Amino acid sequence: MIKVGVVGAAGYAGIELVRIILGHPEFELVRATSGADDGKPIASVYPSLAGATSLCFTAPDVADLAASCELAFLAVPHTASLAMTPALIEAGVTVVDLSADYRLHDADIYEQWYNVEHTSKDLLAQAVFGLPEFDRSPYAKNLLAQMAIAPACSPKLVACAGCYPTATSLASMPALVQGIAKPGRIISDCQSGISGAGRKPSAKNIYDSAAQDCTAYGVTTHRHTPEMEQILSEACCEPVTVLFTPHLSPMKRGILATVYLDLQRGEDGELPTLDDIQATYEAFYKDDSFVTVLPKGVQPHTSSVYGSNNAQIGLAVDARSDTLVVTCAIDNLVKGAAGQAVQCANIICGLPETCGLQVMLPPVV
Amino acid sequence: MIKVGVVGAAGYAGIELVRIILGHPEFELVRATSGADDGKPIASVYPSLAGATSLCFTAPDVADLAASCELAFLAVPHTASLAMTPALIEAGVTVVDLSADYRLHDADIYEQWYNVEHTSKDLLAQAVFGLPEFDRSPYAKNLLAQMAIAPACSPKLVACAGCYPTATSLASMPALVQGIAKPGRIISDCQSGISGAGRKPSAKNIYDSAAQDCTAYGVTTHRHTPEMEQILSEACCEPVTVLFTPHLSPMKRGILATVYLDLQRGEDGELPTLDDIQATYEAFYKDDSFVTVLPKGVQPHTSSVYGSNNAQIGLAVDARSDTLVVTCAIDNLVKGAAGQAVQCANIICGLPETCGLQVMLPPVV
Amino acid sequence: MIKVGVVGAAGYAGIELVRIILGHPEFELVRATSGADDGKPIASVYPSLAGATSLCFTAPDVADLAASCELAFLAVPHTASLAMTPALIEAGVTVVDLSADYRLHDADIYEQWYNVEHTSKDLLAQAVFGLPEFDRSPYAKNLLAQMAIAPACSPKLVACAGCYPTATSLASMPALVQGIAKPGRIISDCQSGISGAGRKPSAKNIYDSAAQDCTAYGVTTHRHTPEMEQILSEACCEPVTVLFTPHLSPMKRGILATVYLDLQRGEDGELPTLDDIQATYEAFYKDDSFVTVLPKGVQPHTSSVYGSNNAQIGLAVDARSDTLVVTCAIDNLVKGAAGQAVQCANIICGLPETCGLQVMLPPVV
Amino acid sequence: MIKVGVVGAAGYAGIELVRIILGHPEFELVRATSGADDGKPIASVYPSLAGATSLCFTAPDVADLAASCELAFLAVPHTASLAMTPALIEAGVTVVDLSADYRLHDADIYEQWYNVEHTSKDLLAQAVFGLPEFDRSPYAKNLLAQMAIAPACSPKLVACAGCYPTATSLASMPALVQGIAKPGRIISDCQSGISGAGRKPSAKNIYDSAAQDCTAYGVTTHRHTPEMEQILSEACCEPVTVLFTPHLSPMKRGILATVYLDLQRGEDGELPTLDDIQATYEAFYKDDSFVTVLPKGVQPHTSSVYGSNNAQIGLAVDARSDTLVVTCAIDNLVKGAAGQAVQCANIICGLPETCGLQVMLPPVV
Repeated sequence: MIKVGVVGAAGYAGIELVRIILGHPEFELVRATSGADDGKPIASVYPSLAGATSLCFTAPDVADLAASCELAFLAVPHTASLAMTPALIEAGVTVVDLSADYRLHDADIYEQWYNVEHTSKDLLAQAVFGLPEFDRSPYAKNLLAQMAIAPACSPKLVACAGCYPTATSLASMPALVQGIAKPGRIISDCQSGISGAGRKPSAKNIYDSAAQDCTAYGVTTHRHTPEMEQILSEACCEPVTVLFTPHLSPMKRGILATVYLDLQRGEDGELPTLDDIQATYEAFYKDDSFVTVLPKGVQPHTSSVYGSNNAQIGLAVDARSDTLVVTCAIDNLVKGAAGQAVQCANIICGLPETCGLQVMLPPVV
Repeated sequence: MIKVGVVGAAGYAGIELVRIILGHPEFELVRATSGADDGKPIASVYPSLAGATSLCFTAPDVADLAASCELAFLAVPHTASLAMTPALIEAGVTVVDLSADYRLHDADIYEQWYNVEHTSKDLLAQAVFGLPEFDRSPYAKNLLAQMAIAPACSPKLVACAGCYPTATSLASMPALVQGIAKPGRIISDCQSGISGAGRKPSAKNIYDSAAQDCTAYGVTTHRHTPEMEQILSEACCEPVTVLFTPHLSPMKRGILATVYLDLQRGEDGELPTLDDIQATYEAFYKDDSFVTVLPKGVQPHTSSVYGSNNAQIGLAVDARSDTLVVTCAIDNLVKGAAGQAVQCANIICGLPETCGLQVMLPPVV
Repeated sequence: MIKVGVVGAAGYAGIELVRIILGHPEFELVRATSGADDGKPIASVYPSLAGATSLCFTAPDVADLAASCELAFLAVPHTASLAMTPALIEAGVTVVDLSADYRLHDADIYEQWYNVEHTSKDLLAQAVFGLPEFDRSPYAKNLLAQMAIAPACSPKLVACAGCYPTATSLASMPALVQGIAKPGRIISDCQSGISGAGRKPSAKNIYDSAAQDCTAYGVTTHRHTPEMEQILSEACCEPVTVLFTPHLSPMKRGILATVYLDLQRGEDGELPTLDDIQATYEAFYKDDSFVTVLPKGVQPHTSSVYGSNNAQIGLAVDARSDTLVVTCAIDNLVKGAAGQAVQCANIICGLPETCGLQVMLPPVV
Repeated sequence: MIKVGVVGAAGYAGIELVRIILGHPEFELVRATSGADDGKPIASVYPSLAGATSLCFTAPDVADLAASCELAFLAVPHTASLAMTPALIEAGVTVVDLSADYRLHDADIYEQWYNVEHTSKDLLAQAVFGLPEFDRSPYAKNLLAQMAIAPACSPKLVACAGCYPTATSLASMPALVQGIAKPGRIISDCQSGISGAGRKPSAKNIYDSAAQDCTAYGVTTHRHTPEMEQILSEACCEPVTVLFTPHLSPMKRGILATVYLDLQRGEDGELPTLDDIQATYEAFYKDDSFVTVLPKGVQPHTSSVYGSNNAQIGLAVDARSDTLVVTCAIDNLVKGAAGQAVQCANIICGLPETCGLQVMLPPVV
């Protein structure tokens, strides 16, 4: 058993990590930190876990984590990881970071979109991006898998992809990588469940505001934009511009990305057919455990991936406007956060990537 | 008081008409038809209306409607209006039709998208399209208002705009009409509440399927597509292609349209600024009673227009991709159906268009 | 037009008062106070009201209210009314209080359940309890109606009934008053929508906690208990003990009270029949505008009274256990708060009690 | 691996059995029947299961089940089990029945409440009631456990407890068995998620009817009443009358039972204290894997048991009315149906009762 800790364990992504790790056959949960809940049994804050664990939250402490954990999952806001990761790595702890702090290779872009200084640029170079399906691109350097076979002498740092970038990238990569769609501008129009806004109570996420309502937010300014552009540009080796519109949808979890890509006509002037595109997507994901390309004409539902690490994809072609429409459903807290982090951790630890991710405790939130 | 009837009154749009008409100062509800509920008190089927009306549903019957009503609202599926409207008009009853049967000026396009024969082509020519805000376009022939001053000798036929076309058109018209955006392809990505799927129970609209779920449907094939194209092409006098993606969102009512338009750079190569666009939208709708352009940076919520005939609009510019993003929220059953029908009826009857639409009974569904 | 103000207008009950008053034909809204939103247009905080009012929130100020209003609705937490009402009354403003501060005739009981000192005991004696249907009891002194005909020389104070007491009392009064049920212990098991918990964000009322969840709270300790006992004991002139269990149900609004009363067998040892009881309830409420006793065998839905001032009641007899089961649905923010306050204000102002309460603006939250 | 089949596998309880069995280490799912879906892949009807199984639904057929399965779960409506169970037992298949057909020991009571003839009275005698926690009563004959050690020569028949009886019994048994509460009349007031109404679309379970609504149904007449009375009377060896009021609550799953029991004063005239009662409940369930008595003062949430086989219990004493109030939360489809059936099957197969029930696939509905 590999001893693992979860930092920020009382947030939605954090408690989801706890849920998954408690049912994981190779990871042993030894620490779950929450400054606000220090000393409280996890099950007193999340009664769903009554009977599943008697562990108590502890205050986050690098020395304590270093003494107890081989691997730490950081389910913290941006900048909190910058403040903690260098010391954890220094202390020999492998870090699987769910924050945005090490995702963008270019610190300038980070500073521009997040409006804070990046204080850990040297580590940036050794961080590996955590979206396992990215490795399917022939242009990718199979880094997650490489980490598993790397000498264990040095601790590893994985910067897991964000929720929206995961859904958008899974929807777009095959078309962009295989040249079916033009890079240029792609539009990602996403619906997210309310848990995406975090667990901090506010006028926006109280029930009476959020229930029975749809709204857009952060239009043209959301920080996941440069992350999507980085993934897709690297995946297809061409510059990609993403116009991203996030929305809140009245459900607890789930992201539905509807992505619009301009189709590339062939040399004969013909559009690729839906059959061709369907085959291309199926081929791209044929070895993936968690991505399902639905049968032609079927669109995914967020409820179909509720609580699981699965992604489901549906395809449609609009020949009237040369557009490919791809919809992709994930659970924002699992494939978009905790599940993906465990999937990455599995890979870098040399375990099957599905380990602990198919059969798990029921959702807590 | 003008005597009015509602045909298809037990459906969601129909009962919404009943709700509004019961509070309307100039319309008297004399008939509410429902074949399935013939003879039942309306309030026994919709207990919300206990105390508000003692009227019973009757079976739909043209002769009876003609004998009792001056104006009939048809809240029926397509083809049902084709079967009934000619006889009602013949009998001297003004028809405000909520179905799709008389919306498309070109019967061929109707037959192609609806896959049925159009059996009432002669009436098509005299039908007026029912989207009052369309009259703001300088290219429009102010037909709704003209009907009011037309000689009352002949009954009138209004084909009210559908729910998605209403939201999409309100979001797009000012930009297209004023040349801020290019016609070409526009993308309308819409979320609709479950009532949009109608009242007939099915595997898709039962609570356990629909709650806590988002999904797309009818991708690239929805029948509202040609209607949007007709409205927008006529409004700006240029051919417009619409790529339309409807989604179901887990709420009872509401449509949120997120529309993507390609910005037209000026002769100086500059993009229009958000300030310019905001001013253009505000000017376009300055005389409208039901359309609010929200302050810069504010996005509309479907819950803000719940149960009302209002539309709210938010604007954003993505200078990185030369795109204008407009979101528009309406209540699909009010501004997208019953409210708009009453607004149209008000106009052609020479009443203020807001009559009975600002203060009304609370929503029934 | 009577000039009215709403104190605490940004809370859920307060904004509901605003909504109703904006459509009221005899009340003119001249003040809406909110300390936190001082200076902001109401419509910027509640965009639903865009177009309906251009009024701005002001800070609560007795002198200002006294100078501008004839009548003030206080939609404030308990103790806030104690702090404000004496000065308003002193200044000649009639007060319709939605807080608990003047509901309990016995200040000791108030102090015991609310755990604060009652600093306004002298006014307590002149406060009238605000549940118009209570006047149907032959034991009641028709106080609300009497206030209307009282000399206008002195300002009036109405202490409106709470939400749970309203639903519980409407369900129980006819049976207790007419001797169908024994006083003794009655059980009121209530479901409330989340708005009942107020608008202040907390770990309990955020969407991800409240959606898809049912739970009980305040079991045996809720402060509405003595209020129910006071109403029912006075209505039937016998001591009544209430065991009250409130629950939160995942909906925005609505209370469903399920009340269990022990049936009183007649001198012949026979139970009253459901027919008898149905007739008794119908007779009790026959002159009421807002209470509907549903046909035998029909149970009320909270959605049927959504946004309205109506109460709906269903009856059932369990002859196996000599129990009468009554369910009553109200909208907690309307009949349980703002609507009832306006109904009371109508009565004491000599207006029809339904004035402004049947046709109103659509719900804001 | 024990070969098992699920009959009625496309219903909500049936697909929940499929979900659990697919993750069960000792059961192999070999048949999943659905007459309406014969031949379709399970994952095409329930896309959540894409990747988890390639099994197709088959038409229900006794011969086929007998040839393929050692044990069959029947997730069918009442009378459907009567039609099938005798032949399955005859063919040597152990039956774990989720219907009501073999729950009531007295066929007359069955016929009276279900209004159909009981055509399989001989089997009734050998059916064991399936509520594992019932065995904790000293008056119970530990039948489920006994079946495991019984000679395997004859197939077994378990009649699993219904959803409401499970929640009500778990809430009541310790108090009744230990003499804390009087038998006499107990009141069970329950909230159920909409899945309790089954998967067949109807005017009542469509989203727009069920969302944002609470209502009671089957008041005083629900068929689970005699089942509750049988369990509790047998558990405490005294006749118990239950007054049961089921409600629908706007959530997909979950039952919250609020049970009112009359406290038994001691010989000294004193009420039992909450501390005593808490201790009694904890002792009663101390060896149970799935029942958690929450800390004093804490009430359970249905969301805390979502998707799991857990039951959580909260206690309160109303000394003002000598009443014990117990709330109990379960997932109606798991502990109230599929999970309990697997728990029973585990026991009679000699497996740990928790086998496959702690770590499972995420919920499908």
